[in-house]
Amino acid sequence: MTKPLRLGIAGLGTVGAGVVKIVRQKAALLEARGGRPIEISAVCARSRGKDRGVPLDSYGWEDDPVALATRDDVDVFVELMGGSDGPAKAATEAALKAGKDVVSANKALLAYHGQALAEAAEASDAVLRFEAAVAGGIPVVKALTEGLAGNDIERVMGVMNGTCNYILTRMESAGLTYDEAFAEADGLGYLEADPNLDVGGIDAGHKLALLASIAFGTQVAFDAVELEGIGRVSIEDIRQAADMGYKVKLLGVCQMTGRGLEQRMSPCLVPATSPLGQLEGGTNMVVIEGDQVGQIVLRGAGAGEGPTASAVMGDVLDIARGTRVSTFGQPSGHLVKAEAATTSTPAPYYLRLVLLDKPGALAKVAAVLGEAGVSINRMRQRSHDQDTAPVLIVTHKTTRAALDAALQAMVGTSVVEGEPVALRIEQL
Amino acid sequence: MTKPLRLGIAGLGTVGAGVVKIVRQKAALLEARGGRPIEISAVCARSRGKDRGVPLDSYGWEDDPVALATRDDVDVFVELMGGSDGPAKAATEAALKAGKDVVSANKALLAYHGQALAEAAEASDAVLRFEAAVAGGIPVVKALTEGLAGNDIERVMGVMNGTCNYILTRMESAGLTYDEAFAEADGLGYLEADPNLDVGGIDAGHKLALLASIAFGTQVAFDAVELEGIGRVSIEDIRQAADMGYKVKLLGVCQMTGRGLEQRMSPCLVPATSPLGQLEGGTNMVVIEGDQVGQIVLRGAGAGEGPTASAVMGDVLDIARGTRVSTFGQPSGHLVKAEAATTSTPAPYYLRLVLLDKPGALAKVAAVLGEAGVSINRMRQRSHDQDTAPVLIVTHKTTRAALDAALQAMVGTSVVEGEPVALRIEQL
Repeated sequence: MTKPLRLGIAGLGTVGAGVVKIVRQKAALLEARGGRPIEISAVCARSRGKDRGVPLDSYGWEDDPVALATRDDVDVFVELMGGSDGPAKAATEAALKAGKDVVSANKALLAYHGQALAEAAEASDAVLRFEAAVAGGIPVVKALTEGLAGNDIERVMGVMNGTCNYILTRMESAGLTYDEAFAEADGLGYLEADPNLDVGGIDAGHKLALLASIAFGTQVAFDAVELEGIGRVSIEDIRQAADMGYKVKLLGVCQMTGRGLEQRMSPCLVPATSPLGQLEGGTNMVVIEGDQVGQIVLRGAGAGEGPTASAVMGDVLDIARGTRVSTFGQPSGHLVKAEAATTSTPAPYYLRLVLLDKPGALAKVAAVLGEAGVSINRMRQRSHDQDTAPVLIVTHKTTRAALDAALQAMVGTSVVEGEPVALRIEQL
Repeated sequence: MTKPLRLGIAGLGTVGAGVVKIVRQKAALLEARGGRPIEISAVCARSRGKDRGVPLDSYGWEDDPVALATRDDVDVFVELMGGSDGPAKAATEAALKAGKDVVSANKALLAYHGQALAEAAEASDAVLRFEAAVAGGIPVVKALTEGLAGNDIERVMGVMNGTCNYILTRMESAGLTYDEAFAEADGLGYLEADPNLDVGGIDAGHKLALLASIAFGTQVAFDAVELEGIGRVSIEDIRQAADMGYKVKLLGVCQMTGRGLEQRMSPCLVPATSPLGQLEGGTNMVVIEGDQVGQIVLRGAGAGEGPTASAVMGDVLDIARGTRVSTFGQPSGHLVKAEAATTSTPAPYYLRLVLLDKPGALAKVAAVLGEAGVSINRMRQRSHDQDTAPVLIVTHKTTRAALDAALQAMVGTSVVEGEPVALRIEQL
């Protein structure tokens, strides 16, 4: 086992440069822990001339990632380019076809093509690992796939987009509006080129779909993730939630139910005193609930050079040691196509609506909720000077379907102004 | 890889019974995730007749764990007996010598004989894994050994004895004295047969020594762990700490310093708002700080049938898949004998002392601290009716040596009654 493990690294952004630095600076440590030397044979990126703060002259260069992926002197193709299709997909497929192991940080690629890629890996006896694609430096893919493999997983939850958590935290702590906090995050370079990937919950949804596949032995189904971004969360909701002992988080939840596989990524209320509620700023957290282990909470940096490179190196060292784990924890042929749950698990909801100041308005809203089978736990009408009154309601556990019926009926009553806000209260 | 993996389980207490249940009830899941069927060939315990709530008739029985460990139909010896010597040691050695892989939940055995056992495992190409020995269901050994292997680890901290955390939490939340909280924990069956293993910090110290070895590539050295139990923590200290924004935890800390390897298990003050400060009751938490990944926090149940059996099964499934990882993350020959640090990393300290009500007493204490080079950050003398006055001091960062010199000098001044209490404030 003293033959070196030779990497081909595609993508030399922050993370790629971070991986190169670790391989250069920690040669002895990596060899001791991986059981053989880790070397870089060649690299590939868009622009050859760019200074990346790390010497690259001693490595081969390829302009084409497919050429890199299939080089004879590459054992492991490390894909750090990103993008759900195009060169990243072509190169990953080429690497697997050529029997190379692949370490990927590409959540979008895996979320859309995970099943096909897992099958391709198995067809040529290669492994495809993706720790860096989910929750940055937190070794959550490993925990779920290996450490907790003796459990029937009951639920996985996560705050897995640091940018959204940053925006929500700033809205609360500094009293910023959504637009102000968004602009601040943008100024700090926290947002993806397409910000909707962050604030629309898409990026976090990719990660959730990957965890769901491992947790429940199902084929990755990103299209079945119920997605709701944070764009409609107002500072008013954050304040009211805080007042009642909750925080608002963009929370991913997946669980297998009698009604099928539930995968949701949406702004939710969580108890302020829970580990998820206490999470501030750009940090990520994943909560795993298993029938044997109970609740396991993992917390750490969800992005950035060091944390993401750390996750990549964890996968590389596994391969160096000879560890062979199926992409989603089971042979791809075992992964079932799960029915998507048509309705989500019942939960209490937080409702905020603006009532027109007419006699009997509140009674009408209460009646509409009652008719839909939604019962009220707490209700609060704020004092008001104008001809409208803000009303807050926390419901008892109800189905989303019943709630939606009530909300629709409410809008038809002519006592409610605009669209009511409804946020799920996730029970921990 | 369809040959079954055959277990021999020694020890049929709660955890052993839990492992048997999982193997019986989750055959299909384990086979899918491990790549081959998991079977039990034989078991061994002290009393054959006892009802353990799970049928054992279909398994072979051995009265002698050494006989179990060396059976031809056993691939993996699962050691759940406990004890740092005697049958557990003899059987583990016999299993390794016979080339069997070993999965152990025995922290004491590993803490005292880890290096020799790691060498024995390598000598016969066997693996020895011990996820269940540290922090129950939290997959922390795996995270540190594999997931974070690309990091130079800077510090590992942990609250790893649920019983102590329960006692300290109850003292704070219910205002119990140490003796009352201890009696309550005892009544609930939380204490080991020798309670000093818990409240003396020994059990948690074993776990810390194991993590230190993996983190820093050193030979396990439990004897070098600086141990201080929770028996001297008073309700007064807990209240004063809370008042200043701290919680008291039995905290393990290990870090490699220029002065050698520091391993401490002692009651410390941690910020009440930190993840460690927020940990209540029997839950465990481990904080890992790496140069690349930053801070990773892992939290979960530290004991109990399900969580511990979950950890055992994680190791078993790794072996089923063919994963071979060195016991402490590197070949045993690479593990160095670390010098124990003679002094701990400087930190602020919390001091509580009782001053005799004499003129100039407080000035004398301040002078003694100053002479030892310990500077005062905050000082508070409480109002008093009698002829003594309680004084609280928070120092600036100081060495333990300087502090001890000051405390010794203080006792000699004749203005201080009894022994001052000194608790380290660990900075997170």
